[in-house]
Amino acid sequence: MANKLYRGVIPPVVVPDTEDRQLDVASFERNINRMIEAGVDGLFFLGSSGEVVFSTDERRDEIIREAVRIVDHRVPVFVGIIDTETERVLEHGRRAQELGADVLVATCPFYALGGLAEVEEHFRILHEELDLPIFAYDIPVCVHTKLPWRLLAKLGAEGVLAGVKDSSGDDISFRYLCQENEKLGHPLSLLTGHEIVVDGAYLSGADGSVPGLGNVDPDGYVRMWKAAEAGDWATVKLEQDKLNELSHIFDCTDGVQGYGAGVGAFKTALMLMGIFESNQMLRPVKALEGKNVEAIREVLAASGLL
Amino acid sequence: MANKLYRGVIPPVVVPDTEDRQLDVASFERNINRMIEAGVDGLFFLGSSGEVVFSTDERRDEIIREAVRIVDHRVPVFVGIIDTETERVLEHGRRAQELGADVLVATCPFYALGGLAEVEEHFRILHEELDLPIFAYDIPVCVHTKLPWRLLAKLGAEGVLAGVKDSSGDDISFRYLCQENEKLGHPLSLLTGHEIVVDGAYLSGADGSVPGLGNVDPDGYVRMWKAAEAGDWATVKLEQDKLNELSHIFDCTDGVQGYGAGVGAFKTALMLMGIFESNQMLRPVKALEGKNVEAIREVLAASGLL
Amino acid sequence: MANKLYRGVIPPVVVPDTEDRQLDVASFERNINRMIEAGVDGLFFLGSSGEVVFSTDERRDEIIREAVRIVDHRVPVFVGIIDTETERVLEHGRRAQELGADVLVATCPFYALGGLAEVEEHFRILHEELDLPIFAYDIPVCVHTKLPWRLLAKLGAEGVLAGVKDSSGDDISFRYLCQENEKLGHPLSLLTGHEIVVDGAYLSGADGSVPGLGNVDPDGYVRMWKAAEAGDWATVKLEQDKLNELSHIFDCTDGVQGYGAGVGAFKTALMLMGIFESNQMLRPVKALEGKNVEAIREVLAASGLL
Amino acid sequence: MANKLYRGVIPPVVVPDTEDRQLDVASFERNINRMIEAGVDGLFFLGSSGEVVFSTDERRDEIIREAVRIVDHRVPVFVGIIDTETERVLEHGRRAQELGADVLVATCPFYALGGLAEVEEHFRILHEELDLPIFAYDIPVCVHTKLPWRLLAKLGAEGVLAGVKDSSGDDISFRYLCQENEKLGHPLSLLTGHEIVVDGAYLSGADGSVPGLGNVDPDGYVRMWKAAEAGDWATVKLEQDKLNELSHIFDCTDGVQGYGAGVGAFKTALMLMGIFESNQMLRPVKALEGKNVEAIREVLAASGLL
Repeated sequence: MANKLYRGVIPPVVVPDTEDRQLDVASFERNINRMIEAGVDGLFFLGSSGEVVFSTDERRDEIIREAVRIVDHRVPVFVGIIDTETERVLEHGRRAQELGADVLVATCPFYALGGLAEVEEHFRILHEELDLPIFAYDIPVCVHTKLPWRLLAKLGAEGVLAGVKDSSGDDISFRYLCQENEKLGHPLSLLTGHEIVVDGAYLSGADGSVPGLGNVDPDGYVRMWKAAEAGDWATVKLEQDKLNELSHIFDCTDGVQGYGAGVGAFKTALMLMGIFESNQMLRPVKALEGKNVEAIREVLAASGLL
Repeated sequence: MANKLYRGVIPPVVVPDTEDRQLDVASFERNINRMIEAGVDGLFFLGSSGEVVFSTDERRDEIIREAVRIVDHRVPVFVGIIDTETERVLEHGRRAQELGADVLVATCPFYALGGLAEVEEHFRILHEELDLPIFAYDIPVCVHTKLPWRLLAKLGAEGVLAGVKDSSGDDISFRYLCQENEKLGHPLSLLTGHEIVVDGAYLSGADGSVPGLGNVDPDGYVRMWKAAEAGDWATVKLEQDKLNELSHIFDCTDGVQGYGAGVGAFKTALMLMGIFESNQMLRPVKALEGKNVEAIREVLAASGLL
Repeated sequence: MANKLYRGVIPPVVVPDTEDRQLDVASFERNINRMIEAGVDGLFFLGSSGEVVFSTDERRDEIIREAVRIVDHRVPVFVGIIDTETERVLEHGRRAQELGADVLVATCPFYALGGLAEVEEHFRILHEELDLPIFAYDIPVCVHTKLPWRLLAKLGAEGVLAGVKDSSGDDISFRYLCQENEKLGHPLSLLTGHEIVVDGAYLSGADGSVPGLGNVDPDGYVRMWKAAEAGDWATVKLEQDKLNELSHIFDCTDGVQGYGAGVGAFKTALMLMGIFESNQMLRPVKALEGKNVEAIREVLAASGLL
Repeated sequence: MANKLYRGVIPPVVVPDTEDRQLDVASFERNINRMIEAGVDGLFFLGSSGEVVFSTDERRDEIIREAVRIVDHRVPVFVGIIDTETERVLEHGRRAQELGADVLVATCPFYALGGLAEVEEHFRILHEELDLPIFAYDIPVCVHTKLPWRLLAKLGAEGVLAGVKDSSGDDISFRYLCQENEKLGHPLSLLTGHEIVVDGAYLSGADGSVPGLGNVDPDGYVRMWKAAEAGDWATVKLEQDKLNELSHIFDCTDGVQGYGAGVGAFKTALMLMGIFESNQMLRPVKALEGKNVEAIREVLAASGLL
């Protein structure tokens, strides 16, 4: 009856594209295997940094199919079923469970304006009509609604939600959620997507993290998690400090912003490190080039990753 | 070479659902025919108030197919191809043109963060890969990006865009766009979605309007347009004043908000007027009921529509 | 008992400073006299573009004293009593009425977070403790609260407010307010600060306007008002179109923004036209210079104002 | 030359008012002495929760004068010199230094729109024209500008700023600022105002905290700081957890919001604990009453503070 507890480092997997924007399966496999070998505890496909909203249904299916094949039950496969409103999200959910996902991750509805009644109804319908555990993905910067911690805790206590992936940047709300979850017997797996302050989230009581930067340096996030498990907070902070130096791949570039700068930096770093063949992006976003690539190379070199 | 100029009243068509949330084709036909008989100049399907983001691909196809059949070339059929990013929007565009649309209406990308470079690239790709005229749908309240008037004018001058449906609520920007469009030889058809201040938009130089409330009172909007064409501004204002009294169907309800209150009010009014069988909504939104239905009945009665 | 109706063009007066940032009284006098001679119906001192939040109490007193002396009862003197919370606003209000203001203009509280209960209480206290008519200044871009039209109408009907200066940019709300005010017997004088779409506001039923650009071209706004009074809407639109060309003094500059670009453009235009000695700004804002001054000169020349 | 480093717990002092809204000096003295006796490392007067924007100049002077007298050099006296733009802030700064403040705390300009050029110029002028160390107060929820960490670090390195009071809620930015400050030789004293996640801020490298809730439970924040100094992170978290239970005085009330709910809860708690005579608020805010007082009493009782 109770949902399983998911813990540890569960990176959102960045997707490699060929120059003509097809899924580059060989690079995908290298990236996945590298993270599993580093000791991650799960992988999250089709997250915000995993091209989910850029992918047609056909591409989504291909990504899930290859992910399930490559991971091959070594770690749990989380799949984002992100779309505007309930019926469309249900369709993605049904496909993902047919294709072998272990956990489904859904945002609240977006585009149409609504209120918390619609948010709650949405998650209840997903739980009723789908068979896999549902994580709520709290990402107001994309969906423009903040999921209130009291609602999340209530849906956790009732078994509607199995967990939360918190990318809200609201560490006060996350802290309250951790404390409330504890009082309720810990029904929710609470994962932070807040990759720059994972240490603080662990101290707050997070069960794990979903760091995009974990594609670039999975070892660092695994070491940080182990230190947190051991209660060695000085090491936790030290590992976070080092990862934050690496995180300047996000802001060392010029003339780009948002997804193009963020996911573009991940792809460029993985290309420079020999894991991806190309740093191609899906349309309408353009790949980083020229000086921006060089700037990222310098950050990687300074972090000892080249 | 030049895009055709679209002028007049082009309501976004509200979609009737049966109690079990199937398309109610008979009600749909009544609603469409009533508006065409009132003298509207076009119809816009799968707009924000036309359930677009609530509809699966299959439902979108059904709506377009029925719309094209019912309209039967009496007025142009505008179709919203609204989705998160370029490849998905292209898929909707290809389907809409196969199914017989006349004009395609697309927002800028949403969910992923980006900048104006991505917005511009997006509309250029749509223009290159699709065959029908493209209208930009400026609706920052849903997509969280405001389309700048200078960019719209530039894309109009180059033939990338055929028109703009402005639901931005930014009448300063719309005014500048009208003046710039005029200087460029009027390449863009400029339609306002700003249903409460259509009179001001007409005075600013709008080529027409896309009023959701036109589903409830198409005659009022047609009379206002004819008065504007005749330069009879006192009548234009008077018609707008009367429509605005009717518009209190949006704010006479309690405990609902956003899409549920707005489109919910349209569906409830059409049900009370005998055009729809039900005021059912697509999930996760609930139909208005009880006192809220009565409140809308009173507004309709006061406006002489019952 | 009833508040007087204020109608027509009531520009917010831009304040000239000497190079060492003292009030330049001679330029101030030229600017005021020029607008009165053009036929404006009132003048608004210490508005957002009148340096109110940049001015110490001593400077505010000096501006009011000189304004009252120069205007010399030729038109009503509106004075902004803008500050963070109630007690401070009351202090400004008492000083302004001692110094000879005719009407007081106050925003809702800002800086501290609050709700509508505090907004309503604030205006009630101002009305009870001050002797002059109070206008509510609706400027959410500065105070981050939008005044709801229903609250404004209620406070008007009770005699708490004598009018509204609407700089909200929300023409739907303004339209509803105009219609409600009419139903209540027109207790409120409704002035739009929306200088680019004054024509639409007049069509909506505004009693007048408060255009910053009226400092640069008072004749244009006076002609537009007279045409509106005559019901000659084609001329109203034409005058607005011409003023909007002039308004590109706001966006022809580079590397500046907000107050520095907007009020900076007014001061620079008035300097180029020989009305101000300098375009100096109060700290921390810098005066426009170099290419930005030349860009404004070109716009003025194209508008025939040089 | 180098600015002194300020460390530890420096609560923003909540101000007691009599029923007729005069400063209640006896209660003020009890509150100050209780915090000093608990071991706080400084006190911050006229902060956002210290009635600064509600206070006339005369009241500000009275608060500073009494604060300096009561504190009597036992801990440093920080004084907020918060106002809209530079000249007005300078006036407050000069008064505060005449009256015996040790450190001045200023926000960036607010009300008028501007950019980072104005923000930087503002702090440079304050540093040049005032004699005391200047802390930048980063509180975007009130001033609607986020101070960028790179700018803060630059102004710290140049000696313009002595420290930062971070109430931004942006823990990523704060983390980057801590790391950059370290690289620069720690010129800035970095204090978090983020009272619910002080533990995370300490782990990030904060030099101290400015917790409003420290008025209610100064001992808890002092114990947390000592544990942080000792590297005992399990205790740091435990103390934060307990303080967070107490923090539900903010959200146990109904029908109130913002300042009235937050500072109102502090005043009500201090009244219930016998430190304040009244929970009166300055206008236009109303004191909490009835069920809201009882709800706060229950939270205090559960936290063992009654």
